[in-house]
Amino acid sequence: MTSVAIANIGELVSWADERPVRHGAGLVVADGVVAWVGDTADLPAADESIDAGGRAVIPGFVDSHTHLVFAGDRAEEFTARMAGERYAAGGIRTTVAATRAAGEEELTRLATARMAELHSQGTTTVEIKSGYGLDTDTEELLLRVASGLTPETTYLGAHVVPDGWTADAYVELVTGAMLERCAPHARWIDVFCEVGAFDADAARTVLKAGIAAGLLPRIHANQLGHGPGVQLACELGAAAADHCTYLSDADVAALADSGVVAGLLPGVEFSTRHPYPDARRLLAAGVRIAIATDCNPGTSYTSSMPFCIALAVRELGMTPLEALHAATLGGAASLRRSDVGHLRPGARADLVILDAPSHVHLAYRPGVPLVHRVLTAHQSHKL
Amino acid sequence: MTSVAIANIGELVSWADERPVRHGAGLVVADGVVAWVGDTADLPAADESIDAGGRAVIPGFVDSHTHLVFAGDRAEEFTARMAGERYAAGGIRTTVAATRAAGEEELTRLATARMAELHSQGTTTVEIKSGYGLDTDTEELLLRVASGLTPETTYLGAHVVPDGWTADAYVELVTGAMLERCAPHARWIDVFCEVGAFDADAARTVLKAGIAAGLLPRIHANQLGHGPGVQLACELGAAAADHCTYLSDADVAALADSGVVAGLLPGVEFSTRHPYPDARRLLAAGVRIAIATDCNPGTSYTSSMPFCIALAVRELGMTPLEALHAATLGGAASLRRSDVGHLRPGARADLVILDAPSHVHLAYRPGVPLVHRVLTAHQSHKL
Repeated sequence: MTSVAIANIGELVSWADERPVRHGAGLVVADGVVAWVGDTADLPAADESIDAGGRAVIPGFVDSHTHLVFAGDRAEEFTARMAGERYAAGGIRTTVAATRAAGEEELTRLATARMAELHSQGTTTVEIKSGYGLDTDTEELLLRVASGLTPETTYLGAHVVPDGWTADAYVELVTGAMLERCAPHARWIDVFCEVGAFDADAARTVLKAGIAAGLLPRIHANQLGHGPGVQLACELGAAAADHCTYLSDADVAALADSGVVAGLLPGVEFSTRHPYPDARRLLAAGVRIAIATDCNPGTSYTSSMPFCIALAVRELGMTPLEALHAATLGGAASLRRSDVGHLRPGARADLVILDAPSHVHLAYRPGVPLVHRVLTAHQSHKL
Repeated sequence: MTSVAIANIGELVSWADERPVRHGAGLVVADGVVAWVGDTADLPAADESIDAGGRAVIPGFVDSHTHLVFAGDRAEEFTARMAGERYAAGGIRTTVAATRAAGEEELTRLATARMAELHSQGTTTVEIKSGYGLDTDTEELLLRVASGLTPETTYLGAHVVPDGWTADAYVELVTGAMLERCAPHARWIDVFCEVGAFDADAARTVLKAGIAAGLLPRIHANQLGHGPGVQLACELGAAAADHCTYLSDADVAALADSGVVAGLLPGVEFSTRHPYPDARRLLAAGVRIAIATDCNPGTSYTSSMPFCIALAVRELGMTPLEALHAATLGGAASLRRSDVGHLRPGARADLVILDAPSHVHLAYRPGVPLVHRVLTAHQSHKL
C-alpha cells in the first residue's frame, strides 16, 4: 500500500459533489487511485505528502480527439492559409506521403515526443487516431504505434479517399482487409463524414463494419458545412460526434436526445479562420460537450488543452468552469471512461497541480504554461 | 574572453541582412555579445559549444508594454466579463487597492516571479510600468521594484484618476511632487489618454512634464475608441503609441510620417472581446509595429509573447515573420534600443532556441510551450 496526501489545495475541482469548487481541500491517492477527498484540516496520514501551497488542483485533461502519429509538418500550408488561401481537405495527402515514407522507429519517436508534450501540459488521457496511412500496412502500423501510447486508439482508415481510388473501392478496403488488420489494435472506429471525404451511406457502411468487428463508433461530423454526420452518430449510438460547427436545430435536438457527446475542437477554427461552433446553443439544449485539441499537422497543430479551454471561453461562450468540465469529464464521456476526468474516490489518480490559485486562470492567462506538476495513476502507484 | 558557439541552427532569424531566414546557420557569442553569424560549416571555434540540433534560433522577445508590478488578481472580473459584462476602466482600482496593501517585499516577490515566467517563454527585454499606486509613495515604490528587474521602467502615475481626486488636482500631483520622486527610477513617462482617463490636454501636460524631467515619452492611445492619443504621440515625438485599435486615416498617416511605433497588444482584445487592431492597414502605410503582451491583471493577463504572435497572425493579419519582427525588432524600436531584438554582430546575446524547426511554429502551434532554451547576454557572459 503506497499512498500520497496532497495538502493545502487552494481550489479543488474534483466533480465529486454538487460543489464544483472546494477551497482549502486535501486529497489522498492510494495505489494510483483517489482514496479520499475532503478538507485539508481532516487530511489522513499517508506515506508521502505534497504541499500544494494554495494552488488549484484539477483532474488531468482528457484529450478525446488527436491524430498524433504522423511525420512531416505543414507550416508552409499554414502560412499560405493565413495569407488568405482556403483550407483544402487534400492537405491531408501531404501528411500521408510523409507518414508512409517514415518507418516505425521514426513514427514511434515522433508520437512519443508528442505524448510527452501533451503530458507536460496536463493531459493524462489521450485518444489517438490512425488515418495518415490510407493503406493497410501503414494504417495497421499507425495503430500499433498508437497502442503503445494509449488504450484509446481509433481506426480512421476512412479519413479521406486516397489518390487513385474510387470511394466505393476504398470503402471496400477499409471495411474489409484493412479493418481485419487494424481492428485488433483499435478500440474505436471513426470516419470523416464530409463533402470531399465520405457521404452518409459510405460513413454508415464504415461504422457498421467497425461495430461488427467489435469497435465502438465515433465520427468527424458537420465540420465544414451542414451534413448528415451528426444524425448518423445519433442513429448508430456513437459515443461522440466531433467538430459540430454547422448544426441544424434537428441536429442539436438529436444530440440532446441521444446523449451523443458533441466534441468541440476550437483549435481548428483558430488555425483555419472558420467560424467557431456555438457551445451555448448546445449547453442550452442539454447536449454533453467535450473539448479536445484535434492535434494534427494540418488544421490544428496545438497540443494544449489549456489553450483550447481559453478559446472555449473567448470564442465558444463557455464559462471557465464549463470549459474545464468539457476538457475533463466531457472528454471522459466522449471516450466512455468513468475512471478518468474526475477526482472522486475510486478515480484514477490523474491530476494536475496548477501554477495558479484557480481553474479560471486557464482562460484568464491564455498561452501561459500553468502546469506546476502532473501526477498520474501510474506515477503515483510507483511512489 | 569567454565564447559560445551554436552549431546546427535549422533556421536562424537574426535580422542581420536581407535574407530574413538563414538555414544551416551557426552563431558565436563572445562576452555576452553576438560576435559572428554565418553558415554552420564555417563556425569558428569557441570555449563552449551548443548543438541546436536543427532547431530554430530567434532573438529573445522584446516585450515593450507590461504592468508587472502589482498584487491581487481579477479572475472574477474576467469571468463576469466573459459572461457578458463590459470592461470598465474602474477595474484598475481593484488592483490599486491590492497593490497599496502589499509591501515592498511581497511586490518584489510577485514581480520577480512574473519576470521569471516571461523569461521562460523567451522574453529577454521587458518594459515595466508603474500605475497601480496612484499616490506618490506607492508609485515610487513600484518603480523602485521595477528598476531592480529592468532598465526599461515607465512612470505611469497618470494611469487613471484615483477616487477622491479631480483630474486637474491629480495631474498637478503627477506632474509635480510625484514626478519628482518617480523620475529618478524611470526611463519613460506614459499616460492613459482615453475617455474615462486623461484627455488630450491633460495627457500633453503629463508627457511634457515628464520630458522636462528627462524622461522619454510613450502613450496609451486609441484603445477603446477614436481619440487624440496617437496625434499627441506624433506631436511630441513619442517612441510609441500603444493599443492603436481605433485609428483614423489621419492617425495612420501621422504614425507613418513621424516614425512613432504602433504598439499592438492583441492579448487585450482576446481577453476583453474588443475588436482587434488592423495590422495590415498599418503595414501597408509603412508604420512600424511592435507586438507586446500588456501583461496586467485586468485586461490581458498573458505573459506569453508566442501567444501574442499567434494572435497577431490569426487576428491581426500579420505573416508569422512580420509578427516575429514586431515581437523582436519592433519592440526594440518601441524602446529605442539598438542592442536587442536582433542578432547582428554586436547585439546583446539574448536569444531563444525553439523546440521547432521554424519560427512559423510560434503561430502554427498556438498555446504550445516551444522554448527549448533561452540564452541571455548576462548568462552567456558568465559561461
